[in-house]
Amino acid sequence: MIMRKELLLEPTPVQYLGRLPGGQDIFMKRDDLLGFSFGGNKCRIGMAFLEDMEQKGGDFMVSYGSPGSNLNRTMAGLCKSRDIPCLILVSEEEGASSKTFNRQIAERTGAQLAVCKKSHVAETVAQVLEELKKKGHRPYYLYGNQYGTGNELAARQAYRKAYHEIGRWEKDSGVKLTHIFHASGTGMTQGGLVAGKREAGGEEEIIGISVARDKDRGMEAVRRYAGEGNEAIRFETDYRCGGYGLYDSSIEDVIEEMMGRHGIALDPVYTGKAYAGMQKWLKQYGTGDERVLFIHTGGLPLYFDYLSGKQAENGS
Amino acid sequence: MIMRKELLLEPTPVQYLGRLPGGQDIFMKRDDLLGFSFGGNKCRIGMAFLEDMEQKGGDFMVSYGSPGSNLNRTMAGLCKSRDIPCLILVSEEEGASSKTFNRQIAERTGAQLAVCKKSHVAETVAQVLEELKKKGHRPYYLYGNQYGTGNELAARQAYRKAYHEIGRWEKDSGVKLTHIFHASGTGMTQGGLVAGKREAGGEEEIIGISVARDKDRGMEAVRRYAGEGNEAIRFETDYRCGGYGLYDSSIEDVIEEMMGRHGIALDPVYTGKAYAGMQKWLKQYGTGDERVLFIHTGGLPLYFDYLSGKQAENGS
Repeated sequence: MIMRKELLLEPTPVQYLGRLPGGQDIFMKRDDLLGFSFGGNKCRIGMAFLEDMEQKGGDFMVSYGSPGSNLNRTMAGLCKSRDIPCLILVSEEEGASSKTFNRQIAERTGAQLAVCKKSHVAETVAQVLEELKKKGHRPYYLYGNQYGTGNELAARQAYRKAYHEIGRWEKDSGVKLTHIFHASGTGMTQGGLVAGKREAGGEEEIIGISVARDKDRGMEAVRRYAGEGNEAIRFETDYRCGGYGLYDSSIEDVIEEMMGRHGIALDPVYTGKAYAGMQKWLKQYGTGDERVLFIHTGGLPLYFDYLSGKQAENGS
Repeated sequence: MIMRKELLLEPTPVQYLGRLPGGQDIFMKRDDLLGFSFGGNKCRIGMAFLEDMEQKGGDFMVSYGSPGSNLNRTMAGLCKSRDIPCLILVSEEEGASSKTFNRQIAERTGAQLAVCKKSHVAETVAQVLEELKKKGHRPYYLYGNQYGTGNELAARQAYRKAYHEIGRWEKDSGVKLTHIFHASGTGMTQGGLVAGKREAGGEEEIIGISVARDKDRGMEAVRRYAGEGNEAIRFETDYRCGGYGLYDSSIEDVIEEMMGRHGIALDPVYTGKAYAGMQKWLKQYGTGDERVLFIHTGGLPLYFDYLSGKQAENGS
């Protein structure tokens, strides 16, 4: 078996991006440079699930996500690398293209694929798990039970550890961060960071920029993944641009600017939306003294989906 | 100006990939994880050209490559990041698609674009340089004169330095390499490595797997980039699969296997062809005692071109 450290290449570098007009120093943690399958937060999270499954004696991974899911792509890949069978459940989303690179890469691992309506996830999960059991497998659904809860502790480990990785970077570099920003979707990344901060007695603000969910649902999820604690959860919903996958020209400008100035690919669904949101947040609430870390949570295949869309628009 | 170290994130990690059936230990240097524009050898090489241009007082970069050129993409990006104007000359190649992601990314930087027949490169370069001078610029053609020679010293620096980076890794890890393999095209990467080896008194074999050129032309180019020396040049032409951009199922299998086992993207034009060639070479000539480094020279957008082609084949 290939060991974790030879697959993920942790820790990831932190890069100084310069100073915003408002005076803030911006750093980026390049989790997009994790070594496995185009990197991204789902490398850390997927590996945490795999380790949990092995500990619990499961032998068949069941994952779930949207057609463009980074988690499904990464989970299918990690399973393939260890010869663990994997089934990925893909939600049918209205208006979303199903021909994403993430889905194509996931399918190429040979993972089983099942499609389900977003309104029937719980039933489909239950049915899939039942069928696998009948065939003699010990399936592991990464979210826990059929309703998607119960496995928060495992997911938490990934960015709890990443938080401590950031702490070691602060110590080495002498930079004391005031804020950590990142794209917040399922809540797994943010929940882990909050748990790490609690453990370490950290003082910076952890601010998740919602890419889709409303405040109540998003905060509830982050809280579950963060575990016991009475800290405030900062889940910002003002920069969603109408919902999952939707974006406007300000997000496109950020993608263009980041590729142009730093050669770093952001995508409109997660990282581009979150980075644009961070800039707006800092403009609105910043004092200028901030030392800010943006976590690049990956999703590089989505940048190529974006380029494909652009090419189609231009009819070339 | 953003400093080099904040763009490229050197040094790159070296990863252990396991043991081949023949007994060889394989390591990979992940130059695909250089921090700028999807990484790759052209990050190091492009930066060497930029530094040379600045030293020589040029103010307008002129690059040249195929429609899928990694050099054009990276050069356009590096220039954009420093607000240096750039013109990329793209050769029209028979049978080659011009709708590559590399070209699209290069165009999105706002670089000027000129297309020329492969048989008319010298005339086109001369004309382009003349026109830029008439407009008051001090153009810098990265290959040197209109025939593409004269600037070998600048190109050499990139992988001469990378060779020493590898040497430091050997010292830190305690691994003594016997062979370094990589995709060899223009000769710039291999020439630099050979120069570094000469300087350090290295003993391992540096073996370039030709992705296109025949032995005479390829070796002559590597020799020019390597500079004075009487060392043997190892430029292997048995694994070209018919020429530039052509590939067979054995190369596709290697791409599949590398993504499946290690989550690492290779492409059929450069890295996949070279890795497959290396495996065949080791099977044919290896003794089993080798400790081998493969340099992943990047070209990640070409993996997505490959996936797009696969999707089109499947009619989905």
